[in-house]
Amino acid sequence: MPGLRRVLVANRGEIAVRIIRACLDEGIESVLVVSEADRETAGAYLADRVVCIGPAPSTQSYLDVDRVMAAAVGTGCDGLHPGYGFLAERPELAQACADNDITFVGPDADTIRRGGDKILARALARDNGVPVGSGSDALDDARQARAIAEEVGYPVLLKAAAGGGGRGMVLVETSDHLEGSFAAASHEALQAFGDGRLYVERYIRRARHVEVQILGDCFGNIVHLGERDCSMQRRFQKIVEESPAHELGDDVRDSLHNAALALTRALDYVGAATVEFIVDADTGDASFLEINTRVQVEHPVTELVTGIDIVREQLRVAGGLALSFTQDDVVICGHAIECRINAENPDLDFLPAPGTVTRWIPPQGGGVRVDSHVYGGYTIPPYYDSMIAKVITHGVDRAQAIARMTRALDHLVIEGVVTNRDFLMALISHPDFVGQRHSTRWIEESYLASPV
Amino acid sequence: MPGLRRVLVANRGEIAVRIIRACLDEGIESVLVVSEADRETAGAYLADRVVCIGPAPSTQSYLDVDRVMAAAVGTGCDGLHPGYGFLAERPELAQACADNDITFVGPDADTIRRGGDKILARALARDNGVPVGSGSDALDDARQARAIAEEVGYPVLLKAAAGGGGRGMVLVETSDHLEGSFAAASHEALQAFGDGRLYVERYIRRARHVEVQILGDCFGNIVHLGERDCSMQRRFQKIVEESPAHELGDDVRDSLHNAALALTRALDYVGAATVEFIVDADTGDASFLEINTRVQVEHPVTELVTGIDIVREQLRVAGGLALSFTQDDVVICGHAIECRINAENPDLDFLPAPGTVTRWIPPQGGGVRVDSHVYGGYTIPPYYDSMIAKVITHGVDRAQAIARMTRALDHLVIEGVVTNRDFLMALISHPDFVGQRHSTRWIEESYLASPV
Repeated sequence: MPGLRRVLVANRGEIAVRIIRACLDEGIESVLVVSEADRETAGAYLADRVVCIGPAPSTQSYLDVDRVMAAAVGTGCDGLHPGYGFLAERPELAQACADNDITFVGPDADTIRRGGDKILARALARDNGVPVGSGSDALDDARQARAIAEEVGYPVLLKAAAGGGGRGMVLVETSDHLEGSFAAASHEALQAFGDGRLYVERYIRRARHVEVQILGDCFGNIVHLGERDCSMQRRFQKIVEESPAHELGDDVRDSLHNAALALTRALDYVGAATVEFIVDADTGDASFLEINTRVQVEHPVTELVTGIDIVREQLRVAGGLALSFTQDDVVICGHAIECRINAENPDLDFLPAPGTVTRWIPPQGGGVRVDSHVYGGYTIPPYYDSMIAKVITHGVDRAQAIARMTRALDHLVIEGVVTNRDFLMALISHPDFVGQRHSTRWIEESYLASPV
Repeated sequence: MPGLRRVLVANRGEIAVRIIRACLDEGIESVLVVSEADRETAGAYLADRVVCIGPAPSTQSYLDVDRVMAAAVGTGCDGLHPGYGFLAERPELAQACADNDITFVGPDADTIRRGGDKILARALARDNGVPVGSGSDALDDARQARAIAEEVGYPVLLKAAAGGGGRGMVLVETSDHLEGSFAAASHEALQAFGDGRLYVERYIRRARHVEVQILGDCFGNIVHLGERDCSMQRRFQKIVEESPAHELGDDVRDSLHNAALALTRALDYVGAATVEFIVDADTGDASFLEINTRVQVEHPVTELVTGIDIVREQLRVAGGLALSFTQDDVVICGHAIECRINAENPDLDFLPAPGTVTRWIPPQGGGVRVDSHVYGGYTIPPYYDSMIAKVITHGVDRAQAIARMTRALDHLVIEGVVTNRDFLMALISHPDFVGQRHSTRWIEESYLASPV
């Protein structure tokens, strides 16, 4: 009989709560792995069963494939959901699942490997007619990087071949900094991904980040759920996301949807994928950035405008069921925005600010959704990502979604820890955001650079 | 310039939070009155300003017209929202507002008086072609009650002329109990409403409670937002509500909508009103029950299926603005259910169970809304109503709304106080609720009466 029966939730924080919720909705038992520092996370109160797999450092818990697999096998799970981050895009985990007859909720190890290697992914995109920006394959050394940089023209980006999430990525403004930047990026890439290979890409001054949500099942159905704009970033980390990407023309938008479909069809993709693009705000030219073979942090904005539960669909298709809808059923309704609430101090260069949340009153009301693992009395451990909640609002149009976000952030009461809430409120009310004139480096180059 | 500028929120609990939210959405400043026992309620963290008006007992705070008015005048409010309960249906407050040039968010004192006197309201209904069940006008004494009871046939209900919410209401099964019941009901009515007058009504064995939501503005626009079924009651108190009322045929439903429109048009109604009906589950006959001249506890189910913000519309029309929509814009989309979470012990005859909420994790996710004033660390005071939250779910149909409610209640974590959560979970999964075979006395006569 198709469908999963018991799923190991191999993650933490808000996405663990999110997966547990989808399991309950699908009638699947959930087993949550926690580190010793996470016994009191909200997910631990919601999962059907909780297994402690190791001490606080993630290398000894959430990043340890053997411990995660032992928990899955030991609790009789027939499925494993990796969430995002941690092991979600490590082919080793997908392979270990396959070796243990446990269904990995995501594509197979080979697809993860091909998607994760940015150079392979660029080649695959190019082969399938997806526009790829000018740049290189893997570089042998800084000398080769210099040759290509001079060809495509400065500034350029040095990026990790195994990378993602902005790590191992350096902007090189002039040729003077090339050698130093190459060494630094390669070192960071090696540390973060165990792979120091770099490639070079032409840097787009005013870039919009646009990504297409894909879902595929094992019957060959591949559909897109429209796109998201994630151009509001700080240090290449997304902090505000929205759907749809209104500022694109219909032609560009359609071409991105089709490119994402072509790329994932070429991979016979099963599961949730996101195909990311950079759109030059000045010329409108789009180029392929990367493909992520897991659920994204910002998936809720797509859920709110489509009414489709992406995590449930992940569980369904992993369990051998068909997608519960077709492309024709996908109708984009209104506009949604997500803000990432981080326990960090904007006045201290966004230094993480863990601690005990003494009072926590999430915003309520129509068109407001909060995904979070914290609650009043919860202590945010210092070991992990500083994100403590996602506030997502939905409106009939972008203006209403922004208005609701303004109110929701205003009515979010957090005491005991410092957060970026006020920073987010300032961002979403800024004329450049309201007027959609921001780009991926707007915060550093314009907002934080100019005196308030 | 029409529209309110600063509104006194003359209530407490979840409805205070709800009104503050609507004020922010409408760009109106909010001033919250609190008793000494309510300084830590969530609303106190959300309102623009908080005024303590007296000690914990509501007679010295929320029920004291002079203190409430002093707060409104002293803080320069141009509007006052009474919420539900407390002073919401006391003509004296509406009159005091008028005397102080403060806009009462609700109808004028005379309309409240006519709606609140059940005997006047029955006459008004009858005059406007609204079906009214067999019964009496105000009774002089038990002797007269006996004569009418014998005419309409036992069992009968004795009800307070000034009543509502089930208080001053007694079911009389046989003539043996008439005199005793009359004395008890009259005494309770006098205590609760300062008015011991009773009337008698034929009792319907299997009654469904159906009510129509009305909104009217000062330009003569009166619209209905469909109906709610509130048949799941315990001791005449609603605990589960839903919209729409599927079990009614379209003919009955249309006739109730039209009756509610006729009645409120006759009153030149401005604001939110609810016209309540009893529908005989066996015959399908509907009869007028009462009209409530304020927002109802269960208004969110209507908001979820219509997408219309009832409290914002209340603020708009009170401020002299037109309704933001017309009858043609009202489209019922899907199905919504509300469960009232009470701090009470079902095992001890639902004895209120105030105390400190040591852990509070509200359910999250698509189609789930929680309206509440509590949070982790909050102490529920013993002085007021035991309701601490409303969980409301929305689905494409009733089955999905129930499934989402099941999950939402499952994922509602409350520690430190006893609640009716498990009781509610059992109710909504019961075949009689799922099959819509319950009636207003089902809990006492069937569910609690039969051994589990």
